[in-house]
Amino acid sequence: MNPDFDANFVAQLDLLMRWRRDVRHFRRDPIPESNMLRLVEAAALAPSVGNSQPWRFVRVRSPALRESLAQHVDANSAEAADRMADPQRRKKYRALKLHGLREAPEVLAVFNDDNPVAGYGLGRATMPETLRYSTVMAIYNLWLSARAVGLGVGWVSILGPVAVAKMLDVTDGWALIALLCIGHPMEPADVPELEQRDWQARVPIDDYLIER
Amino acid sequence: MNPDFDANFVAQLDLLMRWRRDVRHFRRDPIPESNMLRLVEAAALAPSVGNSQPWRFVRVRSPALRESLAQHVDANSAEAADRMADPQRRKKYRALKLHGLREAPEVLAVFNDDNPVAGYGLGRATMPETLRYSTVMAIYNLWLSARAVGLGVGWVSILGPVAVAKMLDVTDGWALIALLCIGHPMEPADVPELEQRDWQARVPIDDYLIER
Repeated sequence: MNPDFDANFVAQLDLLMRWRRDVRHFRRDPIPESNMLRLVEAAALAPSVGNSQPWRFVRVRSPALRESLAQHVDANSAEAADRMADPQRRKKYRALKLHGLREAPEVLAVFNDDNPVAGYGLGRATMPETLRYSTVMAIYNLWLSARAVGLGVGWVSILGPVAVAKMLDVTDGWALIALLCIGHPMEPADVPELEQRDWQARVPIDDYLIER
Repeated sequence: MNPDFDANFVAQLDLLMRWRRDVRHFRRDPIPESNMLRLVEAAALAPSVGNSQPWRFVRVRSPALRESLAQHVDANSAEAADRMADPQRRKKYRALKLHGLREAPEVLAVFNDDNPVAGYGLGRATMPETLRYSTVMAIYNLWLSARAVGLGVGWVSILGPVAVAKMLDVTDGWALIALLCIGHPMEPADVPELEQRDWQARVPIDDYLIER
């Protein structure tokens, strides 16, 4: 039963991680319904503290809600630009496309239930944030699974999480973790868009690995 | 260049996610040095807000430090048990093995730099927590990559993050996200240990997917 993954799979997995991108340019063609469900099921295979499974997914079907979300993000992004002190950076920032909320065939809001029944509190007494971290790993499962079938995901974070929770009228105690755009990417890539557009390149390993 | 992943890879990826476990029972044999580096490099392929790459890894080599960490977690775990109101749950909790800090061949502490230079603040003005979420996805990359080469990872969260940062004497502004045990698992499994031991089973999809 215990699966052995061969060298070819390991190499492909590495390739998957390298070609997993944050996508902002989407084609408009829809995603097969079965794909959407499979992505959410893949998300739910993530680890969670105490097996609490705190992830909650809200699929946004209403065009009006989607437009409200896009306007909300645009307003927050304009404010972020206004706050940038360096005029060069500000100009560069304004030239970036930061979300595909109007074009992507699917918009999925991901919440964390901050007080789930499942798990009986195990493992999170001293680090309650591990609940939200569990939901983040669920999002990342979805992201990798999407890329494996040729789909792209964009994580939109330039927003007020409380405002978005209100717009989507979710249960009290659900905290917004991410607003995701999902669809076919215009141009698959193995270099982050922010690196391509000269915002920020990769840093070397010595900058992030030390010993004790 | 753009890789196409075939149906076989997609099926294997699903299997990888199903067999990725939180491992607490480790064999003691060491991990090849090249594997350790590859795991950290895989981690650094994760997405990060503004491409800020805020993950910081501390490889614990000192046996004395490792024992201090184990004692710290044991003390926190005993306190968590004491706080449990339900005597049945408390008994069940005390019977669980919750970490492999004394046996695993590698212990890796993962921190987040809460104010990284890289990324110029993009994307995190309204949700600064997305920095830590980036580090969580780095951990998960490491976790999946480890499983692909037959290694197991256990995420230990029953600890005081500030106390652990102090023990490991890291830079100010680094926040502990996870303490990881890494090594060969005693018994690979596709059912979470907390489910096997009757702590918490999986919940059905209708409990976590809704539409708006």
